[in-house]
Amino acid sequence: IAKEVGKLLEMKAQLGGDEGKHKFVLKTPKGTRDYSPKQMAIRERVFNAIIACFKRHGAEVIDTPVFELKETLTGKYGEDSKLIYDLKDQGGELLSLRYDLTVPFARYLAMNKITNIKRYHIAKVYRRDNPAMTRGRYREFYQCDFDIAGQFDPMIPDAECLKIVHEILSDLQLGDFLIKVNDRRILDGMFAVCGVPDSKFRTICSSVDKLDKMPWEEVRSEMVGEKGLSPEAADHIGEYVQLHGGLDLIERLLQDPQLSQNKLAKEGLGDMKLLFEYLTLFGIAGKISFDLSLARGLDYYTGVIFEAVLLQQENDHVEEPVSVGSVAGGGRYDGLVGMFDPKGRKVPCVGVSIGIERIFSILEQRVEASEEKIRTTETQVLVASAQKKLLEERLKLISELWDAGIKAEMLYKKNPKLLNQLQHCEDTGIPLVAIVGEQELKDGVVKLRVVATREEVSVRRESLVEEIRMRTSQP
Amino acid sequence: IAKEVGKLLEMKAQLGGDEGKHKFVLKTPKGTRDYSPKQMAIRERVFNAIIACFKRHGAEVIDTPVFELKETLTGKYGEDSKLIYDLKDQGGELLSLRYDLTVPFARYLAMNKITNIKRYHIAKVYRRDNPAMTRGRYREFYQCDFDIAGQFDPMIPDAECLKIVHEILSDLQLGDFLIKVNDRRILDGMFAVCGVPDSKFRTICSSVDKLDKMPWEEVRSEMVGEKGLSPEAADHIGEYVQLHGGLDLIERLLQDPQLSQNKLAKEGLGDMKLLFEYLTLFGIAGKISFDLSLARGLDYYTGVIFEAVLLQQENDHVEEPVSVGSVAGGGRYDGLVGMFDPKGRKVPCVGVSIGIERIFSILEQRVEASEEKIRTTETQVLVASAQKKLLEERLKLISELWDAGIKAEMLYKKNPKLLNQLQHCEDTGIPLVAIVGEQELKDGVVKLRVVATREEVSVRRESLVEEIRMRTSQP
Repeated sequence: IAKEVGKLLEMKAQLGGDEGKHKFVLKTPKGTRDYSPKQMAIRERVFNAIIACFKRHGAEVIDTPVFELKETLTGKYGEDSKLIYDLKDQGGELLSLRYDLTVPFARYLAMNKITNIKRYHIAKVYRRDNPAMTRGRYREFYQCDFDIAGQFDPMIPDAECLKIVHEILSDLQLGDFLIKVNDRRILDGMFAVCGVPDSKFRTICSSVDKLDKMPWEEVRSEMVGEKGLSPEAADHIGEYVQLHGGLDLIERLLQDPQLSQNKLAKEGLGDMKLLFEYLTLFGIAGKISFDLSLARGLDYYTGVIFEAVLLQQENDHVEEPVSVGSVAGGGRYDGLVGMFDPKGRKVPCVGVSIGIERIFSILEQRVEASEEKIRTTETQVLVASAQKKLLEERLKLISELWDAGIKAEMLYKKNPKLLNQLQHCEDTGIPLVAIVGEQELKDGVVKLRVVATREEVSVRRESLVEEIRMRTSQP
Repeated sequence: IAKEVGKLLEMKAQLGGDEGKHKFVLKTPKGTRDYSPKQMAIRERVFNAIIACFKRHGAEVIDTPVFELKETLTGKYGEDSKLIYDLKDQGGELLSLRYDLTVPFARYLAMNKITNIKRYHIAKVYRRDNPAMTRGRYREFYQCDFDIAGQFDPMIPDAECLKIVHEILSDLQLGDFLIKVNDRRILDGMFAVCGVPDSKFRTICSSVDKLDKMPWEEVRSEMVGEKGLSPEAADHIGEYVQLHGGLDLIERLLQDPQLSQNKLAKEGLGDMKLLFEYLTLFGIAGKISFDLSLARGLDYYTGVIFEAVLLQQENDHVEEPVSVGSVAGGGRYDGLVGMFDPKGRKVPCVGVSIGIERIFSILEQRVEASEEKIRTTETQVLVASAQKKLLEERLKLISELWDAGIKAEMLYKKNPKLLNQLQHCEDTGIPLVAIVGEQELKDGVVKLRVVATREEVSVRRESLVEEIRMRTSQP
């Protein structure tokens, strides 16, 4: 019997598979999402805070295409290159979706021979990564980038980038945060004194970068097992990457018998000291941690690197607060523009990228929890009628209001019920209703009703616009 | 000798080709462009006008991913489907870049079972078309879409879409314009009475659509030659598509012995009459032309269709003004959402799409011609110093200003020259300079300089923020 049932089930499954002409899947591509009007309202709040900060710091804005020549992206992202989305070869140029906004920015500078600019760019980027959407990790996501390009005195633009991260994270009130800072020169110096061969610097750096997701033991075994590093070198690295602190740690490492002998490390540590002095002047050094385990994945960094993480403080018993993930990152990339310039002319750059999806998830959850009612339109008045056969009059009135710049709606029915019209206002938060009726038309007035209080006043038609403006002006 | 020179030149050319390891082309992909800060400033003006109009009409806003499942786009665009950008198959789902915002909108409605919404969506779309960038035709370009979905009384939402186009084109002051209107039902009725077989309706409609780019003779020969239509049917169509007018033409066609017998055409003409009544109430009928040659390329339209064109009036001798191209288009598509719904449930929709690239080209040329100076930042004050060794003091002051919400910049030099600092203000339009010096620090003041007048005043440090706000507040 079991066998027969099995057969029947199999036959049913086959039939199910062919059921209907075509099984169409109604979804967005893996790792992507739509934004509903409510989500857009929250998103715009976040963007407004970020843009306000970028403008406060005097940035211009640019935009670049969503795809670049495939070649433009080649050799910029190290091990992450496999995550780039390529377009199908349909004849013509080979194209890829942008992976970040930094490489297109460098291409833009080289192409237009710009050697000095402070710009922001807010746009979507694309990575064929494993999505974890509940934690705000998507394949299509926004980056909000601020970069300073130009030959300047050391660490002044770098300090401003950190100030910007501090301002934005404070402004958005996301809870406590920490900005980790390191320098690729310090890392490279550290690798050198630990006995890592030059050719393995970048790949060992990639391993160190995984320390925020894996325990040291796993990272160590990747270094030794997969990447062929000597166990002694790995252990030596293991000691350094535990270190984090402030000016005191910088001073200590400047005295470190090995690091202090390494030219790169010494340069990096000297600049790190300068950076902390500037951060102290900005009053933000308290939230900055010099952290030798911070490596950043991308190949193109050449100096200071940093990453901001939100700290979870639910549990007061825990000694150190747990990080819930990175919300901003960046660093100095002095060689990238030169990779695009035909003569290799370098333009030093430093920049920061705010990752808004994770911030957005947090704020969205917060709004849901608070039951705050978010309006998704700005409509000031609904043009309504209490009687039938007044469609023409409603059309005439609403047209007058639109032409006067009033935000107005009406129901798209010939004879809508007053109750439905009032209900629409309740549902969407429209504060006023302008009601036309036979009598009002004769008297040259409109009845203006305040939805919240149900108060009704007669307003002369020629004063209506002024009255609506007055009653809906933001204080 | 000539032969020898030829050989040498050829050799040189060959060498030139292989020169360097790799010839990297520094460009954006074909048909795409970057936006410089100055271009972005113009673009934002246009967006602001369009968004203000959409909000005035009570629209919510949504966003969707830049790519969709390839299947989602299949069978929606007729002959234009060949212009869709596909992504490379890198494992997983087959994806395509969106071709417009309408199909993703319909997919969004079906997926979320939304039967009633008024939304706008501003985003880039992608078409592998032949670019003509000087005329504002790109492969990556913005669409600004406003759509009304829901079961409503006839022609009320349709009339609002035309009102919106009228408001935006008036607001942007692009010169005279005309909005052509037709109805797919009238076209189909016309094809029927002309003797076009049902199976050829869509392809003959595509031919009619080319009338704005080709003379009738060429369109006719495409119909007869390529598409196998009888010459009589083509000539019959040729008579109809010459017609354009207003209410008078609608009345005439309602009396047309053939069209009036066709159910579809009669329905379409009846609704067209209603539409013109509403447009008259809106006071915009003067700019609307009922035009039987308007067909629109896309497959999904089912009712009213429209297209706005700018009119060139350089030459007063010309009888009829020449159109310089379409800047907006749209129509009714009552079947599209049903194509995505598993049970085929329909949601009637009508919408308009504003094509901003052509508008943008016009405004950009106008700005260039006028030599208007466009500011690309909003910086209120430059923090400067006249003496050396005051970097720390500048950092402290600018940090205070940022924290108070003042838009402030400084030069990233330890000891910048005062002249360079003032020059930066001249170049970028910064109106004020806050100058710190030894004496000012002792006295607890800052010297505030007005760039335009060179006037300088001493301001107490604690009043500086207020003073800058007052002097830079917009009237």
